[in-house]
Amino acid sequence: MTGKLYGVGLGPGDPELMTLKAHRLISTADVIAYPALETGDSFARSIAAGIIAETVEEIVIPVPMTVERGPAQQAYDAGAQAIAERLKVGQNVIVLCEGDPFFYGSFMYLFSRLSEQFEVEVVPGVTSITACAAVLAQPLTARNEVLTIIPGPMAETLMQERIAAADAVAIMKVGRHLPKIRRVLERLNLSQNAGYVERATLENQHVSSLSDAPEKAPYFSMILITKGEDPWL
Amino acid sequence: MTGKLYGVGLGPGDPELMTLKAHRLISTADVIAYPALETGDSFARSIAAGIIAETVEEIVIPVPMTVERGPAQQAYDAGAQAIAERLKVGQNVIVLCEGDPFFYGSFMYLFSRLSEQFEVEVVPGVTSITACAAVLAQPLTARNEVLTIIPGPMAETLMQERIAAADAVAIMKVGRHLPKIRRVLERLNLSQNAGYVERATLENQHVSSLSDAPEKAPYFSMILITKGEDPWL
Repeated sequence: MTGKLYGVGLGPGDPELMTLKAHRLISTADVIAYPALETGDSFARSIAAGIIAETVEEIVIPVPMTVERGPAQQAYDAGAQAIAERLKVGQNVIVLCEGDPFFYGSFMYLFSRLSEQFEVEVVPGVTSITACAAVLAQPLTARNEVLTIIPGPMAETLMQERIAAADAVAIMKVGRHLPKIRRVLERLNLSQNAGYVERATLENQHVSSLSDAPEKAPYFSMILITKGEDPWL
Repeated sequence: MTGKLYGVGLGPGDPELMTLKAHRLISTADVIAYPALETGDSFARSIAAGIIAETVEEIVIPVPMTVERGPAQQAYDAGAQAIAERLKVGQNVIVLCEGDPFFYGSFMYLFSRLSEQFEVEVVPGVTSITACAAVLAQPLTARNEVLTIIPGPMAETLMQERIAAADAVAIMKVGRHLPKIRRVLERLNLSQNAGYVERATLENQHVSSLSDAPEKAPYFSMILITKGEDPWL
């Protein structure tokens, strides 16, 4: 009997936004695995830190943050191999994933390497999108509105087209793309409809209108745009 | 001191996909409120049923399912008034919301009526989008892909344009719009990329390719389309 691989979403950052199922799987795990910076720091592990038993075996997957994709892919190769060794001897492995495993998550790099050979279960988590809407107190979408989720690195012209075509927009991974996004929203006359959030639901979160956003945005920041003029009344 | 209004996301249906925070707030509540069918049935309440104490006061908001919006809006007026009475005497009120309160949820009808006068906190929940991706074992989005979320009632031509412009698409509230959606995906040559899910994470869920989907889809059904040809390797 081989073990089962779990990709477990931990939500946006506040440990209390983890699901009951994530809590159960992690607190009873024998083996956990997670990607980390080369320093060993892992956002996903930090969310779950309070419920990881001291006796748990931890497979750390240090992922180099290089522009070319080869080194990161090699890191996932090695991580998948270490996980496969545990699965082969019948142990279950719980992969810790910030947010949701299948929503812009690195879990898919492990999933693509292991899902043909092993049983995999994905436990969905609260995404940063709805967490940001909650802390902004800004409803995202109602009734028949279209929501488009756009990554910050998208090219400027294309980004403008996509925002123009949607009723509500979430721009993820804002980071160094903030000046470009400001320009696009100015041109679309949507700057007044945009909210800005850094590190949603963490203790050091920052929530403001886009006009009050800082000049420099961290990677884990998001802009939400809703176009409706109080469409919920 | 007035009470505080909580809009609490309960996730897609499996009670174990509720967050720890939702669990804490509901299991210690004095007053809960939720929209219901005119029969009194409530999907949101059914998700939380196992942790609602017998002594809790329940404000049921029966919402008529009529085409014109007036009767439903009157129901939310009355519901908001009943909630306001509790808040004014200092009680907290926990509104039960399926999925996430700000993601195509009816909570915004209460939010729009009460948020100016009372303190409101929204607790995000797992959405049906990522729950469907999990049960389909189909990663939604990676890296710099665009995800577009489209409600089933959208007009056929517009739907085709929006699907053509996205990297990944979730079509919500499929229901009686299934034949139209099939036509659109045929024309875009995307039928083979589409997965179909009814009642994700509930015991009676149905998961299949679009080609194996039934002729009649219930309201709580979804189609996920990813265009990448195994882009995660």
